[in-house]
Amino acid sequence: MSYRIDALQYANWSEKIFRQMRTGRVDAVHVTIAYHETFRETVLNMERWNRWFETWPDLIMKGRWAGDVRRAHETGRTAIFFGFQNPSPMEDDIGLVEILHDLGARFMQLSYNNQSLLATGCYEAEDPGLTRMGRQVIREMNRVGLVIDMSHSADRSTIEAAELSSRPITITHANPHGWHPALRNKRDDVIRAVVEHGGMMGFSLYPHHLKDKSACTLESFCAMVAGAAERFGVRHFGIGSDLCQDQPDSVVEWMRTGRWSKELDYGEGSAAAPGFPPQPDWFRDNRDFDRLEAGLRAVGFDASEVAGLMGDNWYRFFEENFAPQEQRDDR
Amino acid sequence: MSYRIDALQYANWSEKIFRQMRTGRVDAVHVTIAYHETFRETVLNMERWNRWFETWPDLIMKGRWAGDVRRAHETGRTAIFFGFQNPSPMEDDIGLVEILHDLGARFMQLSYNNQSLLATGCYEAEDPGLTRMGRQVIREMNRVGLVIDMSHSADRSTIEAAELSSRPITITHANPHGWHPALRNKRDDVIRAVVEHGGMMGFSLYPHHLKDKSACTLESFCAMVAGAAERFGVRHFGIGSDLCQDQPDSVVEWMRTGRWSKELDYGEGSAAAPGFPPQPDWFRDNRDFDRLEAGLRAVGFDASEVAGLMGDNWYRFFEENFAPQEQRDDR
Repeated sequence: MSYRIDALQYANWSEKIFRQMRTGRVDAVHVTIAYHETFRETVLNMERWNRWFETWPDLIMKGRWAGDVRRAHETGRTAIFFGFQNPSPMEDDIGLVEILHDLGARFMQLSYNNQSLLATGCYEAEDPGLTRMGRQVIREMNRVGLVIDMSHSADRSTIEAAELSSRPITITHANPHGWHPALRNKRDDVIRAVVEHGGMMGFSLYPHHLKDKSACTLESFCAMVAGAAERFGVRHFGIGSDLCQDQPDSVVEWMRTGRWSKELDYGEGSAAAPGFPPQPDWFRDNRDFDRLEAGLRAVGFDASEVAGLMGDNWYRFFEENFAPQEQRDDR
Repeated sequence: MSYRIDALQYANWSEKIFRQMRTGRVDAVHVTIAYHETFRETVLNMERWNRWFETWPDLIMKGRWAGDVRRAHETGRTAIFFGFQNPSPMEDDIGLVEILHDLGARFMQLSYNNQSLLATGCYEAEDPGLTRMGRQVIREMNRVGLVIDMSHSADRSTIEAAELSSRPITITHANPHGWHPALRNKRDDVIRAVVEHGGMMGFSLYPHHLKDKSACTLESFCAMVAGAAERFGVRHFGIGSDLCQDQPDSVVEWMRTGRWSKELDYGEGSAAAPGFPPQPDWFRDNRDFDRLEAGLRAVGFDASEVAGLMGDNWYRFFEENFAPQEQRDDR
């Protein structure tokens, strides 16, 4: 059995998008449900998802375990797995790690661009590495099965997390820095630290992470994937599209600035282009996964490698890393 | 297989008490984790339980489904099921019903002595019945598998809840009013409404609910059980001891007054005896379930009736009422 999994999306969710997931035969999506939200605000976002699960039971279902990807596939639905781009939902309370996992959270970034209580973000001038609390929280995340995601973290913090964590960590959405030197893309030593400890990286289709941005070609993207697979091993990679569909520009402001600043911060954008950039024409949204798959075949991957990149590598990772340490099974 | 289940305890939890549960061969206990707590305070109480589950994995385990009673029995542990004596943990947010069930809550009282947002408590002068929100919340509790408990509610509210609810409701801890006319004990028409709709009642061993209070005899208690079983059908009854072990008297003040009053309220006590009353000598704590079982045999119940009263009736109820409406199984 082969599965199609996207390891990061943050859309302005609607029936239209859920139907596009079905058109694109996407079996599972890791969705961001918090950027800067407190615990209570994150729970409100979960409540909103619960209403959507109740409203469209034929299109989507809550994902908790790898087995739910299989169940979604068998019933023609998309399994939705929750994640946070920032540790803000756990506030300063390590006990909330288990509570949030219990509520279905499966990925948590240790920092989002800025310094957090746990680790440094990729936009800080200095990266002193993991904090005292960060080291405790990594151990607790390992115990309960909440996956560490370092997509928006700084290099030293990421490498230390990969080494300290007893379970593999992830960069759910980014590309190699050598292909496109965005601040958010990852240098080889960072990718190496993640994959050498069994971790996974999802290739991003967010224009700011792409060579030539919105004008990036499918061929260039797939050649980049081939290069990374050759250097680090194809089994460590999948897709994390970072698709931010139908979002108003006010949302990118919330993502970038939250409540931490009274001034605008343009993040990967600029004063001249502050909003969401347009997607490349070969990956508009969930309907275009077939094109991506064809592009990967065209660049020389064999059928099993393509299946791995399109979801099976993430599926195996879900199987091994979502359950509490003492009871690893696929549920 | 036969199980021993106590449908209500609220102790000052400790390793000593968990070991006494093992001595008494108690397979499952429904424990109160909130009286007047907000959502966030309730989550803090869950976090405290999570630490206890981590600290004493050989004595206790978290209970979520009926199947966990079986697993606890097979591994020589006690399964702990969470419940609230008041709807305060859901605040004014119906979306929290599903969130709290997801976190393991399995019983919620619609009111505790006073009027709540949902229903009237047994100490109010007037009982106008279920509120508008109460009717909505009952439907949501039915949907997700959070059991309605009316132990501290007023008569009309209880009867209306039994009739409106599409799934059976409970009085987890009380006794018949005719045996001992405490305000908290239940009149026959209330018990009848609950059992006629498939519900369950747990007999309380809290002295204020007992004839002659702390001096109540085992024989009198078991004769009361026999009378209720004869009138309403033995399969609708079990134990809900209301054991409040090792609690300082400050806790009974919290139970009675919470933050709703600046004045003392003595509840079932009095100014002369404001604290917790002493337990009858034949039911000191979890170690004495064998005595209770012997007393039930002595009053004439056959082996299968005794097994039902000591836990199998609750087990069957757990099997049918803890899972969401669309997926009833024992997990």
